[in-house]
Amino acid sequence: MKQYKVGILGSTGAVGREMMKILLEREFPISELHLFASERSAGKVVAWDSGPIQIELAEEGAFEGLDIVLGAASSEVAKQFAPEIVKAGAVFIDNSSAFRLRDDVPLVVPEVNPEDVRNHKGIVANPNCSTVITVTAVNALRKLSPIERMVVSTYQAVSGAGAGGPIELNEEVAALRSGKKVEPKVFPYQIAYNLIPQIGSEQEAGYTSEEMKLQYEGRKILHLPDLKVSCTCVRVPVTRSHSISVQAQFARRISLREARLALQYAPGCRLVDDLSQQLYPMPLDTSDQDLVYVGRLREDLTDERGLCLWCCGDQIRKGAATNAIQIAELLIDKE
Amino acid sequence: MKQYKVGILGSTGAVGREMMKILLEREFPISELHLFASERSAGKVVAWDSGPIQIELAEEGAFEGLDIVLGAASSEVAKQFAPEIVKAGAVFIDNSSAFRLRDDVPLVVPEVNPEDVRNHKGIVANPNCSTVITVTAVNALRKLSPIERMVVSTYQAVSGAGAGGPIELNEEVAALRSGKKVEPKVFPYQIAYNLIPQIGSEQEAGYTSEEMKLQYEGRKILHLPDLKVSCTCVRVPVTRSHSISVQAQFARRISLREARLALQYAPGCRLVDDLSQQLYPMPLDTSDQDLVYVGRLREDLTDERGLCLWCCGDQIRKGAATNAIQIAELLIDKE
Repeated sequence: MKQYKVGILGSTGAVGREMMKILLEREFPISELHLFASERSAGKVVAWDSGPIQIELAEEGAFEGLDIVLGAASSEVAKQFAPEIVKAGAVFIDNSSAFRLRDDVPLVVPEVNPEDVRNHKGIVANPNCSTVITVTAVNALRKLSPIERMVVSTYQAVSGAGAGGPIELNEEVAALRSGKKVEPKVFPYQIAYNLIPQIGSEQEAGYTSEEMKLQYEGRKILHLPDLKVSCTCVRVPVTRSHSISVQAQFARRISLREARLALQYAPGCRLVDDLSQQLYPMPLDTSDQDLVYVGRLREDLTDERGLCLWCCGDQIRKGAATNAIQIAELLIDKE
Repeated sequence: MKQYKVGILGSTGAVGREMMKILLEREFPISELHLFASERSAGKVVAWDSGPIQIELAEEGAFEGLDIVLGAASSEVAKQFAPEIVKAGAVFIDNSSAFRLRDDVPLVVPEVNPEDVRNHKGIVANPNCSTVITVTAVNALRKLSPIERMVVSTYQAVSGAGAGGPIELNEEVAALRSGKKVEPKVFPYQIAYNLIPQIGSEQEAGYTSEEMKLQYEGRKILHLPDLKVSCTCVRVPVTRSHSISVQAQFARRISLREARLALQYAPGCRLVDDLSQQLYPMPLDTSDQDLVYVGRLREDLTDERGLCLWCCGDQIRKGAATNAIQIAELLIDKE
């Protein structure tokens, strides 16, 4: 079996570290792993399966000889190094939002639109975390009938803001317990015992950048160019796993029975839905694994062509690191 | 000025205690305050403005001579004592769900439908807490054009489950910090750092009792008998104040400018809405006061007759105790 030389750009963040773990878990065929970071972290040594790895400086020429580079850095860093990576002959699987909506860059969730990966020109984009979870959950229903519109409210974990998010939540809880003042740095306000209805910056029509991603990325992944989405994104004091409340309207009425059957066999999903037994997806149950849990499936009382559901998924794994490595697996399968 | 003999049934719970506080704050004209509870609490002494009060046993004949009884007990207790209270000649303002949908019982939010109180036959019902907050927020918009449907997701604080909710959240946080096991009693699962997408029991079509209240009570309060609501109710690890994400569709298109102007002058509301300045309602800011904060006002991207908004309010005060005492004020104004 062919072995691949893999790099991780932005290897010191929450997603980069998770990518290292998942490469091992999924036994990705690696001959060499190269970790790249900025000057702040270059030179540090990190433990790895086959022995310690020294983090390399991300710079011109650093990517020569690599087959695949997984991007876990910011959009700015991704934009800076993408031309280098492509020139070096590697495929860049990028988790930032830099290239997601570019026509020549496939935006892929392997359970949903694996075929799109074939059209890459050196870059494949990994979608936004809430978008991955939502489209994985609704994809089986979309196959029954096209989705016309979705009204979505999210409940997003603090780890979605990076490794600093859970630290800040813990520090705030500790400070409040000892009567000390809370001093938010990662989030604009105290997140412990609070909710912050803003993720990302203002983008258009009063919606934030995070809120618009589900519409624009959703259209591309689901191949539904006219899909309309109104999304409200809210940060909640949960450590890990995003939860999403979805109302979706389809081109035709889908019965609950049809929907349930489709979700039972949906790739990447687990249907957890029995209210009488108090069974439904919860972030605590979905953390540190790759399935998107779907439950609270109901007919929409406001629209006969609508369904309501609630889904949860680990946004660092399926919403980012796992999805990127699944894309890498698609690329090597092709060869 | 006439002074009233007031009773509180279920005076030892979170809402009953808040009612005592709010009667003083709003200088309700009281000549005598009587506190009623079950055998477990009867006989205990509670501090009050004019001196300590001994809690009386709720029983036959206990309500003789009273003008108003505020109900802060369960539906079962409310049903048991309502005939006694009415027979004694007092008006029963009940916070339970026992009488809310009865044709001969007005269901009142004083900022929304104060005129309905006139039709009472001895009982006036106080709506569900999330319903009070939502209808107070959308009432000014409903005056511009009737609401046809709403898709709602709630973020409900642990104190909505009674005084035991915040205690359980605090105990769980403490247990987790010291590596101990969490043993939920008030909630079916750990609520610390988690979300529970079930409030109330299964009622119809996969919706819980709490989720159906917004449709049925909303229809009655807003005088919109055909209003359709799909609601998803979620318990979040927030101590106090419920938050609600609302998409509402109106009979005609309402411009953002119109909506904003209406909300600016809406009774009982405060418009907090400037995303560029990171200003929006948050539970921490809305706790321990009576206004419903409204923000994140946006045109609905899925429907030209729709608007999206986010609102927060203290569910123990405006969602329960304050609203009940405002109803009492309407009753005595009438005299």
